[in-house]
Amino acid sequence: MVPMNLLRGADGPAVYALTGSWGVMAIEQARLEGPVQVAWSGEDDNFSGLPDPEQLQADPLAAYFHFTSNETIQGVQFSVEPDAGSVPLVCDASSDFLSRPIPVNRYGLIYACAQKNAGPAGVTIVLIHNDLVERCTDSLPGYLNYRKHIKANSLYNTPPAFGIYLVGLVARWLSEDMGGLEKMATINQEKSQLLYEMIDQSDGFYQGHARPECRSTMNVTFRLSDDRFEADFLAQAKSRNLVQLKGHRSVGGIRASIYNAMPREGVVALRDFMQDFLTQHG
Amino acid sequence: MVPMNLLRGADGPAVYALTGSWGVMAIEQARLEGPVQVAWSGEDDNFSGLPDPEQLQADPLAAYFHFTSNETIQGVQFSVEPDAGSVPLVCDASSDFLSRPIPVNRYGLIYACAQKNAGPAGVTIVLIHNDLVERCTDSLPGYLNYRKHIKANSLYNTPPAFGIYLVGLVARWLSEDMGGLEKMATINQEKSQLLYEMIDQSDGFYQGHARPECRSTMNVTFRLSDDRFEADFLAQAKSRNLVQLKGHRSVGGIRASIYNAMPREGVVALRDFMQDFLTQHG
Repeated sequence: MVPMNLLRGADGPAVYALTGSWGVMAIEQARLEGPVQVAWSGEDDNFSGLPDPEQLQADPLAAYFHFTSNETIQGVQFSVEPDAGSVPLVCDASSDFLSRPIPVNRYGLIYACAQKNAGPAGVTIVLIHNDLVERCTDSLPGYLNYRKHIKANSLYNTPPAFGIYLVGLVARWLSEDMGGLEKMATINQEKSQLLYEMIDQSDGFYQGHARPECRSTMNVTFRLSDDRFEADFLAQAKSRNLVQLKGHRSVGGIRASIYNAMPREGVVALRDFMQDFLTQHG
Repeated sequence: MVPMNLLRGADGPAVYALTGSWGVMAIEQARLEGPVQVAWSGEDDNFSGLPDPEQLQADPLAAYFHFTSNETIQGVQFSVEPDAGSVPLVCDASSDFLSRPIPVNRYGLIYACAQKNAGPAGVTIVLIHNDLVERCTDSLPGYLNYRKHIKANSLYNTPPAFGIYLVGLVARWLSEDMGGLEKMATINQEKSQLLYEMIDQSDGFYQGHARPECRSTMNVTFRLSDDRFEADFLAQAKSRNLVQLKGHRSVGGIRASIYNAMPREGVVALRDFMQDFLTQHG
């Protein structure tokens, strides 16, 4: 919906920082609506890194600057927002929204599907700056027009009420039970550190996919130094009830997705298994 | 999505039978994608009727012929499909899908949001004939393209899994507990007849909105002969736990929505209350 609302009929191109698989898909969809400039691409490096701030140069006339705050498949995550100057910053925050505090006033638009940290699949949260709302073109069907949703107080159509209710419960859990997003961020940092330390201390037995400075707190991606151990790693993990660890086929290896709902105990269990497996095969 | 997929780039116009408020909105959206012909309109009659079969004449080159099988606000419902000749029949069946058997092979496309008879809000069911799928244009974003959803086995995006699961439970309830759609249709006929008989036997105290031959089994719409009784009717009904009976502002009066999930006992309670209120005021 972002390109339909903000790129259609715009004076300048949309600028994208391409840091992983979701960015590839976002660009593919944006090209249907207007010109796209790729300000930076990690494709040649198999999306293991992120741009340095000085590598980004957004055309000041650009309609918006789009980035994916966390790429789930590659496990790379922006720790701070890229600097797009005066160009409105648009973020696909689907996989790390509500995992940490973010400076909302730096963004023009944030969109996030709920199913990682916020609630069930079927709900998408959109935050949009007033300045951008007026751009949404009337040539769009009402359902696809952010402005019409806002005008109707998010009741333009019958909303997925049960899913929204669950998002409300999750928000209350975060603010009341977990003590807020600062605390959640600390917990997520600690959880991911348990695994990254294991990787770094394994003398190359485990090899992280993302460069250390770009590592995600949500998706920890790594390979075994010897690919032949991988099937055994997954089978032994499964026998300890550690499941859904196979990496996406485009990256391979192992992926541990440790969203808000994964307790520290689950991560500790995986870390301990990784240590045992290393002792056994290393 | 229907006009985007089937009208964009088509040779002929889209033809609509306009029988109520949802049809008005459907046409408004379709005009964004191409020319629209209104084959019949009940607007001058405040949408209290439906076209006779011989009143409908669809341009044989039309992209499709669209009708709304049941209009919730006006309470008019097609008992049989309109005859569109060789033109593909497209139906918004949102409010009566799964309330009765339908001859699926007569349709080119059926779409129905789940929240009336099939499941929770946030799920939409689409049945599309193979012949129409190839028309879906690649100029559409993937999410809006029926063909891409089919190609991805309805997993193009992360689907609203919990809602779909509930639709599955409702389907099982219909087929196993209720004995199938034939039986559900009989129950719905009987439920609505209880109220329409009350209206017809009230000597004009209750006045049905829909013409008798077009009456809906889902939404029974009527007025009180004296509008001043309406507030009292609603208040007394509420005191008997009969709620959500106020009609839509565009039609006024009273509306009893008696979807699959409303048991016969609920309808009997309303009928009995209507009798009491009539005795009191009639």
